[in-house]
Amino acid sequence: PDNFFLIAGPCVVESESLLDEVAGTVSRICARLEIPYVFKASYRKANRTSASSFTGIGDETALQLLQKTGQKYNLPVTSDIHAYDEAAPAAKYIDILQIPAFLCRQTDLLVAAAETGKIVNVKKGQFLSGPSMQFAVDKIKKAGNNNILLTERGTTFGYQDLVVDYRNIPWMQAHGVPVVMDCTHSLQQPNQTSGVTGGNPQLIETIAKAAIATGADGLFIETHPNPAVAKSDGANMLRLELLEPLLEKLVKLRKAVI
Amino acid sequence: PDNFFLIAGPCVVESESLLDEVAGTVSRICARLEIPYVFKASYRKANRTSASSFTGIGDETALQLLQKTGQKYNLPVTSDIHAYDEAAPAAKYIDILQIPAFLCRQTDLLVAAAETGKIVNVKKGQFLSGPSMQFAVDKIKKAGNNNILLTERGTTFGYQDLVVDYRNIPWMQAHGVPVVMDCTHSLQQPNQTSGVTGGNPQLIETIAKAAIATGADGLFIETHPNPAVAKSDGANMLRLELLEPLLEKLVKLRKAVI
Amino acid sequence: PDNFFLIAGPCVVESESLLDEVAGTVSRICARLEIPYVFKASYRKANRTSASSFTGIGDETALQLLQKTGQKYNLPVTSDIHAYDEAAPAAKYIDILQIPAFLCRQTDLLVAAAETGKIVNVKKGQFLSGPSMQFAVDKIKKAGNNNILLTERGTTFGYQDLVVDYRNIPWMQAHGVPVVMDCTHSLQQPNQTSGVTGGNPQLIETIAKAAIATGADGLFIETHPNPAVAKSDGANMLRLELLEPLLEKLVKLRKAVI
Amino acid sequence: PDNFFLIAGPCVVESESLLDEVAGTVSRICARLEIPYVFKASYRKANRTSASSFTGIGDETALQLLQKTGQKYNLPVTSDIHAYDEAAPAAKYIDILQIPAFLCRQTDLLVAAAETGKIVNVKKGQFLSGPSMQFAVDKIKKAGNNNILLTERGTTFGYQDLVVDYRNIPWMQAHGVPVVMDCTHSLQQPNQTSGVTGGNPQLIETIAKAAIATGADGLFIETHPNPAVAKSDGANMLRLELLEPLLEKLVKLRKAVI
Repeated sequence: PDNFFLIAGPCVVESESLLDEVAGTVSRICARLEIPYVFKASYRKANRTSASSFTGIGDETALQLLQKTGQKYNLPVTSDIHAYDEAAPAAKYIDILQIPAFLCRQTDLLVAAAETGKIVNVKKGQFLSGPSMQFAVDKIKKAGNNNILLTERGTTFGYQDLVVDYRNIPWMQAHGVPVVMDCTHSLQQPNQTSGVTGGNPQLIETIAKAAIATGADGLFIETHPNPAVAKSDGANMLRLELLEPLLEKLVKLRKAVI
Repeated sequence: PDNFFLIAGPCVVESESLLDEVAGTVSRICARLEIPYVFKASYRKANRTSASSFTGIGDETALQLLQKTGQKYNLPVTSDIHAYDEAAPAAKYIDILQIPAFLCRQTDLLVAAAETGKIVNVKKGQFLSGPSMQFAVDKIKKAGNNNILLTERGTTFGYQDLVVDYRNIPWMQAHGVPVVMDCTHSLQQPNQTSGVTGGNPQLIETIAKAAIATGADGLFIETHPNPAVAKSDGANMLRLELLEPLLEKLVKLRKAVI
Repeated sequence: PDNFFLIAGPCVVESESLLDEVAGTVSRICARLEIPYVFKASYRKANRTSASSFTGIGDETALQLLQKTGQKYNLPVTSDIHAYDEAAPAAKYIDILQIPAFLCRQTDLLVAAAETGKIVNVKKGQFLSGPSMQFAVDKIKKAGNNNILLTERGTTFGYQDLVVDYRNIPWMQAHGVPVVMDCTHSLQQPNQTSGVTGGNPQLIETIAKAAIATGADGLFIETHPNPAVAKSDGANMLRLELLEPLLEKLVKLRKAVI
Repeated sequence: PDNFFLIAGPCVVESESLLDEVAGTVSRICARLEIPYVFKASYRKANRTSASSFTGIGDETALQLLQKTGQKYNLPVTSDIHAYDEAAPAAKYIDILQIPAFLCRQTDLLVAAAETGKIVNVKKGQFLSGPSMQFAVDKIKKAGNNNILLTERGTTFGYQDLVVDYRNIPWMQAHGVPVVMDCTHSLQQPNQTSGVTGGNPQLIETIAKAAIATGADGLFIETHPNPAVAKSDGANMLRLELLEPLLEKLVKLRKAVI
């Protein structure tokens, strides 16, 4: 079978040099391993737990850097939007519009994203089942767009933990769209008293292997040269130097999945 | 102690005659029982499960009807907003801006609501703990508004059920704001295969009594003369004629809460 | 309506003087407040998290002390059994056989308890719904015993927390038996890395008030003169001196429940 | 790496011919695929939801049939025990004593099983985390037995569903013991109003593949020539004729797991 695709990059656009380092490194690895690669970074963080957390370097600047990075390395680029009126402006710069999990039921947002004609990647809400994502798919199709991805990113499991239910891989594929496993955010530990979401990055390999084995079409992995100094999601991002050996294992696994 | 307050009305603005019937009936009951009453109806439903569900009669028309109803019966009025740019327009007509549970972490939305100077009622996300709602409170206060309510509406409990955790009443009151129990939506049965959220209206009394006993400052109850024909949330709304006997029991209970 | 009943005592039989102090104090309080009182202590702890935890002073000795305490203060006495062959021996000394939550589906245990003719109090498993407790009731009735209590003690909510679902009060009463709220164990914080289950005793009042408001027939509260030195469940037991003011509030609340 | 091992057979000992058919068929498949095979059937079902469900053909008779089947096909044999006094008698006939999930914290049962010297396979309670299974391992080791298996079988996820958390595979392996995935019971749908636990057997392949990918040492699969007429767990057992193609895929996958 064909290989899985990879959506990867730093959580947020911090600087041009960061995008350059990550896109350059990951595109080289993916070329060697024959993994189709989509570059990802958020141009703005709209729903940080705490109002005092970093939210970005400016939307327009960040979107331009994303586009430039994609052009330089010949990569499709994705970022997340948070309100219906961000869809059209973002679509000028990026190829895949990602809908955050908390917002996956906002009809206006889904329709606005659909109407750009770009690929729309909807993350499954932590409060939704895979079968229920049919309704997100239907809203986008009804708006005339059939280029849809769905992403699993874990489900609420008590207040301070998420659990990945792998039944959602076949359940969401049954909607006729490719399914991505978000190996980063599904390991979040929400509702920490510190106001900073925690994580378990040493389990990324476990989450990714199970996804490939159960037939996921793509993986989403946030990566950073030095997660400890990252401006967002440092608790969950994979250290960039660990990405290549991980992908080698996953490619080997993929070939064994019938 | 003082009585609890009540936020009640039909789920969505269907027609002027519906608002009139509900506001007239409930304001009469609340006057007799000395319950401060806030009239509620959504002017638009933005996150229906299915794209083919009813979403409203037009925003401007619905907001004007809400304002008119409030003026006629001398009631404060509330409705929910779904994007940051709805805050200012809605604030021209209504007194309390309600933030939907799925959107309780959207900083732009919270800030825009805060900046209207109106009371902001944030529903606790189904994926959040009561202590974590501190961060929503902080975002609103940081925007210069201290008129805040928090509302419990149940927490994700498997895919097709919600559970009300009453520890959230004192936990959210610890943030220094009044806490409301949403007796309607906390009984939802989400992720039904039909695409229509289910419910258990016969348990409204159980949910409400436990809220009053644990010190909730207010109750939120959607009510309709005939829920079976309602255009939204029919599965959970309380039949209007059942409201008065329920409130009588709750007022009696409130007086016994030390 | 009649008052609720109270099942209370220290978690485990530590010594005769402890039983004496607790039974004496609580029976005096309950006599004044007209609360029917059942004395409770475990004669053995069979399922401690860790094998190195205290399990008891000897079964026979502990059971005799329970019986003696009941006779001295004219109280019915209850304790929990853990295997079918403990039912008949325990029934010689105690009035109510309590079935632990983890064991509520063990048919042999339920039948053996039923066959003693004593009252059987089955705790709802953390993994079971209230409606499913019908099957426990049926197993006991089929063995010829109609003296049954069911107890709510919280439901698994992620790994390290329990949540009390108050819908279970009316759902279990629908099986035709009195329903008890275990205000102690429903506040456990299981799966702590220390091997010692944690707790939140400051929330006992919240749990108890919601139970009374939703119509619970009885309350279960473990209490100890000094929980910090208790040999089991110290994290959750109510300090004995706090019991009387709590019960006063609850009796007042009960009178307001229609 | 070496292959995974398989624990498989019908849910309960129904008849000698059934054991013969399953053990014969599966041992032939496993020999070809070089999968170490352990024959499994329960000699008694002690915790059926409903008292009117089938519980067995008699303990002694069933245990003898298990032993005979093991000898005929040269297979180790396993069954589950439910009370401490079943450990020694069962150990006369079988090689691996399985501890049911609901009973995984019962110290007496774990110790009695440990003292037989047989391998003890403890299923993780639906209410426990993988890390907490350390305490079950410790209880068995303290009783002098280091031959321990742990089995994942899903975790409570709302009332009517279980979810498999694959983090438990590495978390339980960290206790220094082999870890088994129970592909049958982790697909149960408990708390059905019918009193008969439901299931999703079409997802067995998904559950098994993710287990192999995440490094599980063994798989547990109940299988029956005709699940529709099975006397227990018919909703979840794999049709016997589907086992061979499933195992072929899993062996291929195992070889790709680094």
